[in-house]
Amino acid sequence: MELQFTLKGSFKTSADASPAKDVIDAFFTEANETILTKGAPEGEGARIVEWDIDGDRINLVVKSGKHVRVHDALLRVRKPLAAKLGKEFHIGVRGIDVESYIIELPSEKPLGELKIPYVSSIVYDNGIITLTLDVGESELENRVPDRILKLMEDKIAALSYGGKGEHWEILWESEKKEHVFSGDPTKEMVKQGWLKRGASRGQWIHGAQSTRMFRTFERIVVEELLEPLGYNEMIFPKLVPWEVWEKSGHAKGVYPEIYYVCPPKTRDPKYWEEVSDYYKVTHEVPTAMIKEKIGDPIGGMCYAQCPPFWPYLQGETIPTDEFPIKVFDRSGTSHRYESGGIHGMERVDEFHRVEIVWAGTPEQVVAHSKELQERYLHIFNDILELEWRKAWVTPWFMAQEGLDGISEQGEIGTIDYEAPLPYRGDGGEWLEFQNVSVNGNKYPSGFNVKCQSGDELWSGCSGVGLERWSSVFLAQKGLDPDDWPEEFRKRVGEMPRGLRFL
Amino acid sequence: MELQFTLKGSFKTSADASPAKDVIDAFFTEANETILTKGAPEGEGARIVEWDIDGDRINLVVKSGKHVRVHDALLRVRKPLAAKLGKEFHIGVRGIDVESYIIELPSEKPLGELKIPYVSSIVYDNGIITLTLDVGESELENRVPDRILKLMEDKIAALSYGGKGEHWEILWESEKKEHVFSGDPTKEMVKQGWLKRGASRGQWIHGAQSTRMFRTFERIVVEELLEPLGYNEMIFPKLVPWEVWEKSGHAKGVYPEIYYVCPPKTRDPKYWEEVSDYYKVTHEVPTAMIKEKIGDPIGGMCYAQCPPFWPYLQGETIPTDEFPIKVFDRSGTSHRYESGGIHGMERVDEFHRVEIVWAGTPEQVVAHSKELQERYLHIFNDILELEWRKAWVTPWFMAQEGLDGISEQGEIGTIDYEAPLPYRGDGGEWLEFQNVSVNGNKYPSGFNVKCQSGDELWSGCSGVGLERWSSVFLAQKGLDPDDWPEEFRKRVGEMPRGLRFL
Repeated sequence: MELQFTLKGSFKTSADASPAKDVIDAFFTEANETILTKGAPEGEGARIVEWDIDGDRINLVVKSGKHVRVHDALLRVRKPLAAKLGKEFHIGVRGIDVESYIIELPSEKPLGELKIPYVSSIVYDNGIITLTLDVGESELENRVPDRILKLMEDKIAALSYGGKGEHWEILWESEKKEHVFSGDPTKEMVKQGWLKRGASRGQWIHGAQSTRMFRTFERIVVEELLEPLGYNEMIFPKLVPWEVWEKSGHAKGVYPEIYYVCPPKTRDPKYWEEVSDYYKVTHEVPTAMIKEKIGDPIGGMCYAQCPPFWPYLQGETIPTDEFPIKVFDRSGTSHRYESGGIHGMERVDEFHRVEIVWAGTPEQVVAHSKELQERYLHIFNDILELEWRKAWVTPWFMAQEGLDGISEQGEIGTIDYEAPLPYRGDGGEWLEFQNVSVNGNKYPSGFNVKCQSGDELWSGCSGVGLERWSSVFLAQKGLDPDDWPEEFRKRVGEMPRGLRFL
Repeated sequence: MELQFTLKGSFKTSADASPAKDVIDAFFTEANETILTKGAPEGEGARIVEWDIDGDRINLVVKSGKHVRVHDALLRVRKPLAAKLGKEFHIGVRGIDVESYIIELPSEKPLGELKIPYVSSIVYDNGIITLTLDVGESELENRVPDRILKLMEDKIAALSYGGKGEHWEILWESEKKEHVFSGDPTKEMVKQGWLKRGASRGQWIHGAQSTRMFRTFERIVVEELLEPLGYNEMIFPKLVPWEVWEKSGHAKGVYPEIYYVCPPKTRDPKYWEEVSDYYKVTHEVPTAMIKEKIGDPIGGMCYAQCPPFWPYLQGETIPTDEFPIKVFDRSGTSHRYESGGIHGMERVDEFHRVEIVWAGTPEQVVAHSKELQERYLHIFNDILELEWRKAWVTPWFMAQEGLDGISEQGEIGTIDYEAPLPYRGDGGEWLEFQNVSVNGNKYPSGFNVKCQSGDELWSGCSGVGLERWSSVFLAQKGLDPDDWPEEFRKRVGEMPRGLRFL
């Protein structure tokens, strides 16, 4: 069967509408052929299939497929019905009551346990999922049933591509290289005192040598890419409230990986005295007591780096000649709650990234993505002399919104830069160390940014992961500066000496 | 009256100790003159004032002042008593029961409502606070009563200096200057498009011009201070777990100002599906539901910048010639939940700071503080040409642990750098824009760091607040580069143009 909506409900009237029975009959009959099919393919509109008058109610049963859905049908009918009843019979239409709202949709498999707002039951039988909605007039007006249907359709689609994983298609590959080093660079860095684990999970404290590597990579990106391409440095915020993730789309599905941030319920020292006193007496921080004393999470620590930039442009109309806008940020850390286990620096909960953002017309954004790719190619080939490749993958925003799946190569999407880590062996997984994404109108539209010319606006972003660059470079070149490419050695200068311990 | 402890309790014995009555009597009589007074001034030890035998218990009442406190008295007596009963009577001492534990301490005023672990009542009467403790053997062994007493003494001390505020004593002051600008720089920066408010409270998004100011200040600090003084850059973590704040002392009292961080209880997408689905249907983030699904806070966002550095040295013994250690960090944001109201850039919840840390022998640390102060003087006088002063204040760590009060000037303590903001008028409050602190052995001791030579280790820290430097510089010099000091203009270069909006 096809998707089907069935709504039983009624228009509440200010008086018994029986005197208007014939007029209503004529109106509904006509509506079934006119306003309830308008915009739908032939024979696919909504239909009022039953109706009667019961005191101050006009009861009706409406059915539809995906075009002119039953709630839209009711809303389309309300106004002209009210006009007819008012003018000829002085009867007002007071509102809509929904007795039942059913959506039936085909699915090869059931969806498992789900708790969805406004859905009172989900039953799977013989290829059909039957949803019973608990909605009223305001939910119809807010198109809540549309959002529920979209959600279910996404879940059904995910079931069928679930096993297929991400799209991946190679775009360019460097020649294969001989690598001078085959160790795990993190282990070697720890051994040589370049860094140490931090106190929190997936976190490192970078000593002088590791920090020098990061700052050198950063300077290479600034000098070889950002300055030549006309970028301005900005400082993006690092505590990200829901408001930003609602507009960026992350609020749809980023929850499993967020480090959530909760403020104190109050800053009154008296309110917190109990906690301080508990600690001073027991020498244990009372984390459960603190959880009671903090507010609901207001958002999280920086996850993707560019969303908190966008409020800078939010609601603005920008002169056409300001585009393409080119800005970058390197002002702080990003945090992701990654899966457990001990990993090296290539997989961390706290990391450092130069985030590059550009925006303009679709043509400008796509053209600029190509310029960036050329600069990266120059850096990876001529300065770092890496073995690497780039591939077209599922756009990050689809992945982060829980929409993994197939995305054919086009103008909108993500290019991942990947490199082999020799210590993982010939068949070992390559490490993604960088991306370039064209995000279409997602951000300008989410944050309501307009171009003076009226042209559509697109944007792109590219994240330079310093932990990842270090992991790749050191895995291929080792920790001995004598083995490093000349162009890199010139830029890194004399490596600082780290602290020695007994 | 003086501080007094009274403990009623008993040693549990493996059999009726009546046969040993005379031996116990002799032992207690002697103990009152020997082991219970050892280390205490004449006549100020603990005393066993009553005792008897009741079946398999030796009941006793012990009193003491602040020396050889009653719990120490019991612990001192236990072993020799057990030796006597074991050898001569084959009776074992099985443990200690505490029937009641009372502390009476003088206070001019009552302390108000308090909830303190192991304290079942707090009564104030006629200049005396009477605490009834609910403790057992393991709390006696862990010196819980000592911690409770210390806590109460601190609270009583706070009552009496509560009104006096922080210590403040001027150390140096520049000559008074004519200022070319008298506006509020934040308002002017917003007007000229240098920055905009971020989406979270007390947070800014810095445009190209404001960022250029920050980066120029940072470069001045690197070139004029950090490099000449032999500093190495490191990267300190920015998510700070309790473990770090326990060792740094912040766990004693920093709670009212922390942005707390809670991880997801699990990273399983199925666990979070309900939250995603709720958002997709309602377009509202269900913050209360999320609070149920996250764990207790594991710590907070970076508050003071140096504590998360110290695990790098934790538990290490360091060769003597590595000192003084000199490192700095500028890798991310700090966050403080500040009091409400709309403020400019000089008072923010999210800010950027270069944190400077040094450690060595007390002489090295004090001497290096002076070197830093000379470099700052050079920067503020010769490059920024500010009107400023420095003052000796309550050490930050006393303030952050809730120990405000008088601290006389000595070697350990904090120097605040302050500057007038002309727009606040002649009598307006000066802004603290920078500090230099000598912290004594606080950190090396808290993190158990040792010097090979066995010398005591001290440390110092100095925070360069970039928002504060900007606020002071722009308040005194205005936003027009033509009005800026030549030495600064040389370093800032041509100011970038920010984005224009319609």
